[in-house]
Amino acid sequence: MRVTLRSAILALGCAIALPAFAQSPALIVEKKTFDMPAYTTVAGGTIKNVKIGWQSAGTLNADKSNAILIAHFFSGTSHAFGKYAESDAAPGYWDAIIGPGKAVDTNKYFVISSDTLVNLNVKAPRVVTTGPASINPDTGKPYGMSFPVVSIKDFVNVQKALIESLGIKKLHAVMGPSMGALQAYEWAASYPDMVGRVVAAIGTPSADPFLIGWLDVWAEPVRLDPKWKGGDYYDSGPPIEGLKAALKAITLHANHWEWATKTFGTAPAEAGKDPAAAFDNKFKVQTTLDAVATTRALTSDANSLLYLVKANQLASADPSKIKVPTLIVYAPTDLVFYPPYVEQAAKTIGAETVPLTGPNGHLNGFTAITQAGEKISAFLGR
Amino acid sequence: MRVTLRSAILALGCAIALPAFAQSPALIVEKKTFDMPAYTTVAGGTIKNVKIGWQSAGTLNADKSNAILIAHFFSGTSHAFGKYAESDAAPGYWDAIIGPGKAVDTNKYFVISSDTLVNLNVKAPRVVTTGPASINPDTGKPYGMSFPVVSIKDFVNVQKALIESLGIKKLHAVMGPSMGALQAYEWAASYPDMVGRVVAAIGTPSADPFLIGWLDVWAEPVRLDPKWKGGDYYDSGPPIEGLKAALKAITLHANHWEWATKTFGTAPAEAGKDPAAAFDNKFKVQTTLDAVATTRALTSDANSLLYLVKANQLASADPSKIKVPTLIVYAPTDLVFYPPYVEQAAKTIGAETVPLTGPNGHLNGFTAITQAGEKISAFLGR
Repeated sequence: MRVTLRSAILALGCAIALPAFAQSPALIVEKKTFDMPAYTTVAGGTIKNVKIGWQSAGTLNADKSNAILIAHFFSGTSHAFGKYAESDAAPGYWDAIIGPGKAVDTNKYFVISSDTLVNLNVKAPRVVTTGPASINPDTGKPYGMSFPVVSIKDFVNVQKALIESLGIKKLHAVMGPSMGALQAYEWAASYPDMVGRVVAAIGTPSADPFLIGWLDVWAEPVRLDPKWKGGDYYDSGPPIEGLKAALKAITLHANHWEWATKTFGTAPAEAGKDPAAAFDNKFKVQTTLDAVATTRALTSDANSLLYLVKANQLASADPSKIKVPTLIVYAPTDLVFYPPYVEQAAKTIGAETVPLTGPNGHLNGFTAITQAGEKISAFLGR
Repeated sequence: MRVTLRSAILALGCAIALPAFAQSPALIVEKKTFDMPAYTTVAGGTIKNVKIGWQSAGTLNADKSNAILIAHFFSGTSHAFGKYAESDAAPGYWDAIIGPGKAVDTNKYFVISSDTLVNLNVKAPRVVTTGPASINPDTGKPYGMSFPVVSIKDFVNVQKALIESLGIKKLHAVMGPSMGALQAYEWAASYPDMVGRVVAAIGTPSADPFLIGWLDVWAEPVRLDPKWKGGDYYDSGPPIEGLKAALKAITLHANHWEWATKTFGTAPAEAGKDPAAAFDNKFKVQTTLDAVATTRALTSDANSLLYLVKANQLASADPSKIKVPTLIVYAPTDLVFYPPYVEQAAKTIGAETVPLTGPNGHLNGFTAITQAGEKISAFLGR
């Protein structure tokens, strides 16, 4: 089963109003692989045989000026739009705004999206990434925690190599939600001549200290699981329980009180099993979060989660270096990226902001993204 | 070293403006023990030889009508006010508002505060509690996870027995922060004839579903630590790493972005050790949170944390049953108890609300509590 954030949200019982055009035949996309013989990280590490997956829709025009790059969120993949097959249960996570005639119109733009380095979803069938679960060509064994530290800027640098391999000199726009926003900001700060505009959703240019602390809370359960073994678990079996606990924390952090109250109330998980009567009798919110985490853990890699945590902690794009037109889409109830820091970045950059409303906190950047559709479309067309 | 929330906050580098009267000689309090031969829980379990610690200040008047009960927070103890000895590093957690001439004036009121059942701070020298770390008289061994499930109402029922043992028929007020507010609300809902008024700080009457989920996130690291052993670790050594991770999550959740930014920024933990250069090079916010958690873990018991989590998940006082005058003190930036739910409770009860401002989120209920001093004093005097 392919687990996307969208399916995870659906599993959480959160009703997503599918836009009318979901009835049209799906945009079918194909997963491709980009190879680099070697990549040197910002911190000076070397990674050989780098591979990342990517997908695209639309047609690159003659002067290669209509490309839009979509960067994904923490637990995301390149699958931002379309389906791999008509029979897929769900399309990519931002399919509501990306496709023919949609806000990011694939009739006009060549839209491309890639898996990052150290992508979480190592075990998902179509994900292609290079990270701690990859085989180190020097040893013939998985890197584990010997993989070099990578940062958001490393993600961007590998994307840049992919973009350049297609002959694209300048992106019409870089867009992304959450960790995708961190990447979009980093693109604009590091390679201002290659970025026409930025659409940053539910994210700030850098990780603030509170988020740095929380990212450790996300990671901690993995390290506590005795099966983690310092990251050397690829032969012995993965630390699934720790991974599940980490994914539960992430799932919850990305959502909001209003979602939990609306979706679950204080219903018990099982009728007749009063949570007050026994330690193992639970509320529905507890067992549902456990079930979602269990599903997400099936395709995730624990070490990759630790590398993603580190990369996010290192996120540090300087907003004063961002000179290109920027549209900031944010959730005023976001519990991951503090809304006043989003507003501060908007002020520094001189960006327009679009608030999203809904019961899902940070995840309004997915469940409510169509609210920003018209603004995004107009902004891209300017 | 005795660890109080106040000392933990100080360790976090958060400057607390000590009120002027901190210069006066400290109020010296004595720790006492209340015994019950047996207590039957709300869920029907039996606990023999129940002991809880308590302290008091002021004098109970002739008709025993001037008693105020202070209920403590999740990781708190009876030590809400005063010092055990003049040489103590810090007084109790609400000493800024409790004492001679203070908002809760011990020249007028007999102020009493007790340790709860399953108190977290089992290893703190003066804490007296009955919980999973206690010896089960039937087996001669610690209960571990065979201790009965207890709820906030059980905490209240044991306090009620203590209060009645002193001949008090009705409390002038019940007060408390956070889990102390859950207890104060439960007192007023369950025993309306015994409660004159309620001062509920930084809490709602019941645990909302989002908090129920978060409480599991707090607990998860304990269960993942291989030393936890299903709770049977009293001979083999405690799951300190899991306990530390749990306490780190709690410490962070109770605070706020503004605190982290003001206190740490993105300074590295050690000069010359760039967090980008190696996996183990950290930011100051990370190592400080680790150090605070390590200190707090020294006096805490892991199973007790799990029982506290369960008790908080079961908190369910019905605000429509609260008919006594109620003053609600809350932090609009609270990340533990959702401020709109505090306001909803205030509306249902018909309570007056006092907001607290400051950079500490939920912990403003401690660091900024003097902002509510005058309102509390006037409310108690009505």
